Amino acid sequence: MPTFKLTLAYDGTGFVGWQRQASGTSIQGLLEDAFRELDGRDVPVTGAGRTDAGVHALGQVAGVTIARVMDAASLVSAINARLPDAVRLLDAVEVAETFHARFHARAKTYRYRIWNDALLSPFERLYAWHVPAPVLDVDTMTAAAALIEGRHDFAAFQAAGTETRSSERIVFSSSVHGPSGDEHGRRGRSAGLQACRGALIAYEVSGSGFLRHMVRNIIGTLVEVGRGRRPVEWVSEVLASKDRGRAGPTAPAEGLFLVRVEYD
Amino acid sequence: MPTFKLTLAYDGTGFVGWQRQASGTSIQGLLEDAFRELDGRDVPVTGAGRTDAGVHALGQVAGVTIARVMDAASLVSAINARLPDAVRLLDAVEVAETFHARFHARAKTYRYRIWNDALLSPFERLYAWHVPAPVLDVDTMTAAAALIEGRHDFAAFQAAGTETRSSERIVFSSSVHGPSGDEHGRRGRSAGLQACRGALIAYEVSGSGFLRHMVRNIIGTLVEVGRGRRPVEWVSEVLASKDRGRAGPTAPAEGLFLVRVEYD
Repeated sequence: MPTFKLTLAYDGTGFVGWQRQASGTSIQGLLEDAFRELDGRDVPVTGAGRTDAGVHALGQVAGVTIARVMDAASLVSAINARLPDAVRLLDAVEVAETFHARFHARAKTYRYRIWNDALLSPFERLYAWHVPAPVLDVDTMTAAAALIEGRHDFAAFQAAGTETRSSERIVFSSSVHGPSGDEHGRRGRSAGLQACRGALIAYEVSGSGFLRHMVRNIIGTLVEVGRGRRPVEWVSEVLASKDRGRAGPTAPAEGLFLVRVEYD
Repeated sequence: MPTFKLTLAYDGTGFVGWQRQASGTSIQGLLEDAFRELDGRDVPVTGAGRTDAGVHALGQVAGVTIARVMDAASLVSAINARLPDAVRLLDAVEVAETFHARFHARAKTYRYRIWNDALLSPFERLYAWHVPAPVLDVDTMTAAAALIEGRHDFAAFQAAGTETRSSERIVFSSSVHGPSGDEHGRRGRSAGLQACRGALIAYEVSGSGFLRHMVRNIIGTLVEVGRGRRPVEWVSEVLASKDRGRAGPTAPAEGLFLVRVEYD
């Protein structure tokens, strides 16, 4: 009964998210169907994180134990042959049977992409949040993002109505990367779209774990600062309040990517 | 009756191509519907090039004459509000009423994207041709691409059954750009997908005009060279033969982008 650590990429567009639901197509459901076909039995697949509907992954991790003895390369080919091309098994590594994709994860990294120009490139529409105006202040967003780092109770950034044992998490790094150099000069001009990168602001955050909607709520909050509606320090106040009602709105799913999950 | 030169970007996925067809959604049809709604009458929209089903555009150009007097910025907003977000009007410039998007085009530039790795990134599946193996030889492809430059009869690269007055065209530049530096070292490893750029080979070609399927047939031919099935010089033989049966297969539509159209 070999156990494998799976690394997956998927375009979340049109899926109901990672977790199997009563209706709609989930990534977990597609994988469990593929493994059932391969292994001739029901095979549970456990993901490191439950990405929501429309959220993408460059390096989601999952664990699976199968009855059949197979090498990792054959497993990758056999599973990919049974998945739609919007979901790819990038890698499989045989691990100890005690491996648990969620409980053993030491760090997760997410990226959030914002398209900050009057016009949204057709090639970004499924992979970024369109903030047409004003031109966001990347410097104040960068300063505000840094205030998220450290061990905090992130209750203010948790989806309303979620029950968790604790809303304390550690954020190892939190940073904003804006259009730079030549690209910056093109912002606000529609011709910049032709370059398809000139209006992109990316946020990257690594942490011990994330609450439901936490990254999207942080982004909604940072954008309030970038718009100049709130000062940088407001982010610390929101965090300290532990009150979801104080933070910015939840940014849309399509800008969010689970980049990687790390283990010891 | 102002005449406008329109610059457009579109994700060609799911459309029947630029030209209006008996069934299916075309880019031209979407634009003509938007202009009819805006101008209260039938308004023909003429494109610089007829991109095929599934082909994308970063800078297609079209011409339109409307009855209503409007400034360019209002036109851009009004038309984009009437288009799906897979199609964006990037720019409109008022031009002389004699402007003809197709006849007056001096140069067109196309880009073709190849994903050369065992696994295709989910984020590239609609925007690149997947050539899983072998690792293509970018150096021989670059040398072969250069043989296309100049004034030639491109009959060998024209879609079978197409009727044109002349199949002579001038190619100003034709070049291949492979994965470089660090990216190159990651090719062939599935983890390279996480970087999402390590397996990308791009072809760029500028010319006075292009025959139907010409870029896709050139790519099909260059890939034969990159695979090592044919020597570099074979491309000159194919070109000289003027025989479509001698060239490589037609590469798929999803890798092709109309990048820009230039005018005097």
